[in-house]
Amino acid sequence: MVRLASRVSRLKASPIRDILAVASRPGMISFAGGLPSPESFPNVGSLSFEQGDLQYGSSEGEEYLREQVSADMEAIGLKVSADSVLILSGSQQGIDLVGKLLVEEGTEVAIESPTYLAALQVFGLFGAEYVNFDIDSLSSAFSKNTPTLLYSIPTFQNPSSRVYTDEQRQNLARICDDNDIVLFEDDPYRDLMYERCDRQPVCSYMKHGRWIYQSTFSKTVAPGLRLGYLVCSPDLYPYLLRLKQAADLHSSRVSQRIVHRILNDESARARLATLQQLYKDKRDDFNAVLCNYFDDIATWNLPQGGLFFWLTLKTTSRINTQYLLSNAIDSGVTFMPGEPFFTDDREASNCFRLSFSNVDKANMEIGLAKLSTIFRQFIDTAESS
Amino acid sequence: MVRLASRVSRLKASPIRDILAVASRPGMISFAGGLPSPESFPNVGSLSFEQGDLQYGSSEGEEYLREQVSADMEAIGLKVSADSVLILSGSQQGIDLVGKLLVEEGTEVAIESPTYLAALQVFGLFGAEYVNFDIDSLSSAFSKNTPTLLYSIPTFQNPSSRVYTDEQRQNLARICDDNDIVLFEDDPYRDLMYERCDRQPVCSYMKHGRWIYQSTFSKTVAPGLRLGYLVCSPDLYPYLLRLKQAADLHSSRVSQRIVHRILNDESARARLATLQQLYKDKRDDFNAVLCNYFDDIATWNLPQGGLFFWLTLKTTSRINTQYLLSNAIDSGVTFMPGEPFFTDDREASNCFRLSFSNVDKANMEIGLAKLSTIFRQFIDTAESS
Repeated sequence: MVRLASRVSRLKASPIRDILAVASRPGMISFAGGLPSPESFPNVGSLSFEQGDLQYGSSEGEEYLREQVSADMEAIGLKVSADSVLILSGSQQGIDLVGKLLVEEGTEVAIESPTYLAALQVFGLFGAEYVNFDIDSLSSAFSKNTPTLLYSIPTFQNPSSRVYTDEQRQNLARICDDNDIVLFEDDPYRDLMYERCDRQPVCSYMKHGRWIYQSTFSKTVAPGLRLGYLVCSPDLYPYLLRLKQAADLHSSRVSQRIVHRILNDESARARLATLQQLYKDKRDDFNAVLCNYFDDIATWNLPQGGLFFWLTLKTTSRINTQYLLSNAIDSGVTFMPGEPFFTDDREASNCFRLSFSNVDKANMEIGLAKLSTIFRQFIDTAESS
Repeated sequence: MVRLASRVSRLKASPIRDILAVASRPGMISFAGGLPSPESFPNVGSLSFEQGDLQYGSSEGEEYLREQVSADMEAIGLKVSADSVLILSGSQQGIDLVGKLLVEEGTEVAIESPTYLAALQVFGLFGAEYVNFDIDSLSSAFSKNTPTLLYSIPTFQNPSSRVYTDEQRQNLARICDDNDIVLFEDDPYRDLMYERCDRQPVCSYMKHGRWIYQSTFSKTVAPGLRLGYLVCSPDLYPYLLRLKQAADLHSSRVSQRIVHRILNDESARARLATLQQLYKDKRDDFNAVLCNYFDDIATWNLPQGGLFFWLTLKTTSRINTQYLLSNAIDSGVTFMPGEPFFTDDREASNCFRLSFSNVDKANMEIGLAKLSTIFRQFIDTAESS
C-alpha cells in the first residue's frame, strides 16, 4: 500500500470547491462563493498582450507590474520598493507560500474565529495548531504562548465583513512587533468599500517585526486571470521568492500584461468607482430583501465593504447549517455554511455566509425566499425536538 | 527571532532562477535555460479568449481542455478519461503537488543521477531522502529498501537527453507495480523528437500500481502562459485535486482558452512539424559548432529530441563547472553547470548542459568559441596544479 505524506490526512475536502461546482449548475441561485459580478469585468475586446509575453519570465513577476504595485502600496501607506513585490498566481498562492515558509507540525498560528476557510485549510495541511485571537482583547491573548504567525483580514473580513478601527490596527502591529509574531495581512477586499472606514494596512504600523501583506486582482479586475501579489519585510522576501519559483516558476505573463493594461487604462479610476457603486447598490438591494425574509430569525450587520453578509440565527437551538445545504441545493439555492470558517464546529452553530455580488435583484428575491423557508423548517424541527 | 519551518533550511537557491536572471541581460548569449525559440511561438494576433473566462473557474481545469488532453493521452497509449486530467499552472506545479502528496521528512524518492534540478529542489524541500537508480540495473536497485516514489523523465531526459527503450519502459513499470512504488513520469519534451525513438509512456504499462504522468504546453505552445497537465491513477486524483485547489484555486482560464485555440487551429499539425524541423536544424547547427570547439576536450551524444546537449569533459582532473560560470558570464555567455542536477557534487564533476533552442547560428559560433576558451583555461590550470 502506498504511503501518503502524513500531512495529507489533514487535507480536508474543500467546501469552496464543492459548492462552486454546484453553483455553476444551470438555474442555480448562488449566494455561496465570493464571485465578482460579470458586470464588473473589463471588456475582453480591449485586452491584449505582446509576443514577448509568451517566453519564460521572472519568478518575481514583471517589473512594470511590480512598479505599479509598489506605487499602489505607497498610496495606502505601505512604503515598499518594487524589489519587495512578489507577483502571485492569485492570493491563494500567497497562503501556500507563507504556509511553507512558517508552518510545520505543531506551529502555533493565531487566527480569528471565524476566518477565511481556505487559509485554515492550507495552514492545517502544513500542520498548524490554531490559537484563536480576538482583536478586542489582544493583550491578554498571547500571555501564555506566543504564536509564530498571525493571520488576519483586517478590512471587510471574510466571512464577517468586520473592519478593524485604526486603534485596533496600531495595537495589533505593536503586539506582533513586541512578541516577534509574523503578521500575515490578507487584504483582498480593500477597494470594495461602500462606506468610509479605516483601511490603513496593519503592516504599515509594524516597526521592526516581520510581516507579509497580500492582495489580489481577482476582485477589482478579474479572477479568471489568477493574479495577486504580496509585499513583505525584506528578510522574508528571498525565501518567499524561492518558494514561488519552486511552486510554479512564475505567474502567467499574459495575465500580468492584461492586468497592467486594465489598471493603466485611462478609465481605470472610473472603473473602480463604477464597481463600488455596482456593489453598493447590490448590497442595499440584498439587505432590503434580507430584511423581508430573515429579520425575525437572524441578525447581521450591514457590510461596509466586501462581498458578504454574515448571519447568525436567533434560535436558542444549535443548528449546524451544513445540514441545510443539501435541502437548499435541491430547491435551487446555495449558500456557505458557517462551519468551515471555524476550527471548532460547535462555535459555528447558527452562522452562515451569503454573498450578494453575483446575483441580480429578481434572484435575490427568489433565492432568499426559498432559503428562508428552509431555515424556518429546520429551526422549527430543532426547537420542537 | 522568527522560527521558520525546518523545511526551509533545505531550500536551496535555485540555479535556474539565478541563471535566467543573468540570461536576460542585453547581449548575453545563453545556453543555460531550456527556453523555447521565440520563432516557435504562435502569433499573438490570433490569440483571443472569451468574456466568460474572466470569472472563477474549476480547480480541475476547463472541461474542453481536459477532453483534449484525454484524447491526446489516448493517442500516445494512455487511456484516461477527462475526469482524470488535472490542468496545472505549468508542470513545475505538478512536482509541488506530488511532493506535498507523497514526500515528507525521510521519504525515500528514487531518482536518476543526473536529473531535473527543480524536481530535486522541491522533493528536497519536503524532506526527500534520495536513492539513485539506473535504468540499466533496476532489478537490483531496490532489493534492500523500497522507495515510496520514483521520479523519471524517460524521453529526452533533462539534462542527459537519454531515451529509454521500450524494454526498459516495460521493465520499469513492472518493478514499480511489483514493489508498490508510485511512478511519477515527467514528459515535457515528448513532442520535440528529431529521430524516431520509443516514446510510449511508462505509465501506460502499469497494471495495478499508482502513477502520475505529466507534461506541459510550455515547449510546444508557449511557456509564458504557464500551463501544463497531469493524469494519474484514479485513487490519487482526489488528493491531487484538493492540493491543486489549496495551491492556487485553479489555473488561468485565459491561458487555458488560448492554449486550446492553438491546439485546435487548423494549422496545429503543421505547427508541430515546423517546430520539430526548426529545432532539428538548430540541433544540427549546434552540433557542428560544438565539434569545432569541444571535440578534443569533451564527449557528448547527439540528442534525439528535447532541447539539450549534455557534455562531459575528458580531463582526468575533477572540475566543478559551477566555478567556471562567473568567468563565462563576464565574457557574455551563460551555460548550466552540471552540479545542480546531482544530489552529490562529486558525481557531477566535469559535466555541464548546453541548450541549443534559443540561440541563432551566429551566436552559437561566438558563444561556443568563448566557452571553449574558458573551459580550456580551467582544464589547463586544473591539470597543472
